[in-house]
Amino acid sequence: MGDAHVFDAAIGLEALADGAWQGHTSPAYGNMIGPYGGITAAQALNAVLQHPELLGEPVALTVNFAAALADGLFVVRPRPARTNRSTQHWIIEILQDGQVVVTATAVTALRRETWAGHEAAMPEVPRPQDVPRSQPRGVEWLHRYDMRFLAGAIPREWNGQGAGESLSRLWVRDEPPRPLDFPSLTALADVFFPRLWLRRARLTPLGTVSFTVYFHAGSEQLRATDSGYLLIQARGQGFGGGYFDHAGQLWNEAGELLATTHQVVYYKE
Amino acid sequence: MGDAHVFDAAIGLEALADGAWQGHTSPAYGNMIGPYGGITAAQALNAVLQHPELLGEPVALTVNFAAALADGLFVVRPRPARTNRSTQHWIIEILQDGQVVVTATAVTALRRETWAGHEAAMPEVPRPQDVPRSQPRGVEWLHRYDMRFLAGAIPREWNGQGAGESLSRLWVRDEPPRPLDFPSLTALADVFFPRLWLRRARLTPLGTVSFTVYFHAGSEQLRATDSGYLLIQARGQGFGGGYFDHAGQLWNEAGELLATTHQVVYYKE
Repeated sequence: MGDAHVFDAAIGLEALADGAWQGHTSPAYGNMIGPYGGITAAQALNAVLQHPELLGEPVALTVNFAAALADGLFVVRPRPARTNRSTQHWIIEILQDGQVVVTATAVTALRRETWAGHEAAMPEVPRPQDVPRSQPRGVEWLHRYDMRFLAGAIPREWNGQGAGESLSRLWVRDEPPRPLDFPSLTALADVFFPRLWLRRARLTPLGTVSFTVYFHAGSEQLRATDSGYLLIQARGQGFGGGYFDHAGQLWNEAGELLATTHQVVYYKE
Repeated sequence: MGDAHVFDAAIGLEALADGAWQGHTSPAYGNMIGPYGGITAAQALNAVLQHPELLGEPVALTVNFAAALADGLFVVRPRPARTNRSTQHWIIEILQDGQVVVTATAVTALRRETWAGHEAAMPEVPRPQDVPRSQPRGVEWLHRYDMRFLAGAIPREWNGQGAGESLSRLWVRDEPPRPLDFPSLTALADVFFPRLWLRRARLTPLGTVSFTVYFHAGSEQLRATDSGYLLIQARGQGFGGGYFDHAGQLWNEAGELLATTHQVVYYKE
């Protein structure tokens, strides 16, 4: 057995006696304050996926960041609030020192064949091999991803001369490469740097407060995607009163829509 | 005091002894099976808004529909899982006969003046007075809204000849008119008929499983909007494996972005 991938080491959970799980923050995914939110979301989902009563696969996940996680241990409490014949509804809390730091809900379901016809089409872009890799600058978790920007890269200078619009589009995969699964897809849905920074070219302090992923792919499609690149994009919608949101999409190299995502972010000024 | 508006009667809650609230489904907002989901979401939010420990105004709301509500009474349990200086995180459950039928989370916050610059611009469309009102057909809750479609109206015939895309755009307000507030804005964010029906022109059985609203307006902006029309639009993204999602936006007549919304919907075939 080789060493675990850094992502698997980061999202690993240890079963506690009462149906809860113990996890730990990972310096490899460190952000400015506490861990990268995408890793925390992946950990919340992982607690559901490890649960002995799990039914089906993730369809929807909403993670609310109630407080900055402190570096160290935390407890994840997933609870199946309702189990139906083909769907299951989860409430998840992450706690540190007995205080709630994350609330989340998830819907899992047994998927089946139906009519299908994705409407959000992947834009035509150069292949990932033909796009130069962006050099990660700054916080540690950026080094865990291979990002290749096609549009809306992070501003080179924080000079207040922001872009007129906040669309970012990039190829991305885990670094080192790792076969895609639901936790890693969840984490990948949060790699967009804050849309406000693109609009304003100012390093305004901020933090995601609520993050949602809708999963359009089943586990077979994720397995087929393997460790290929994903094309992901996000664009801001409303910015005001201390909060902005964005909406995004994630496709694999074959052009299949794997997930859609939204988040709302607090900002200071 | 005149009679209460039908919407206020529908979302009314009675305090129970243990911090929970009792509500009831309203025949005026009846759907095919059980109540209109937008009313249920408004009731979940209303329980938060009535809570004595409430801090601030809604920023994000996610409502997961775990089971069809039976007509009659239900209990709403809102719990402030975490209260910070300017933000508060809620977990909400709705129960019938001791069984969870809805799970939800909400983020409320004290908003303050910051840089603002909405990016999702209202499309140029005729004024609501110049667009004919659609005659509500079918379920009862449709009669509670004045809808004026500009694009993507519900198919006239269920002949399998669906549209190539699922964009709907319409003016809408409560019928009779009612001053806008957070619960009614929440309910308005769910009035889109299922995008799948537009794509396929088939009355496939379906039901929303998760619904999110991000609020971009504060209460003052809602008051200023008063009982005017909202321009709302939504477009499907992924359709497959029994689930599809859509993303939408809501503006007031002044062109101000009030909310963005997303949902993921189960469908049978």
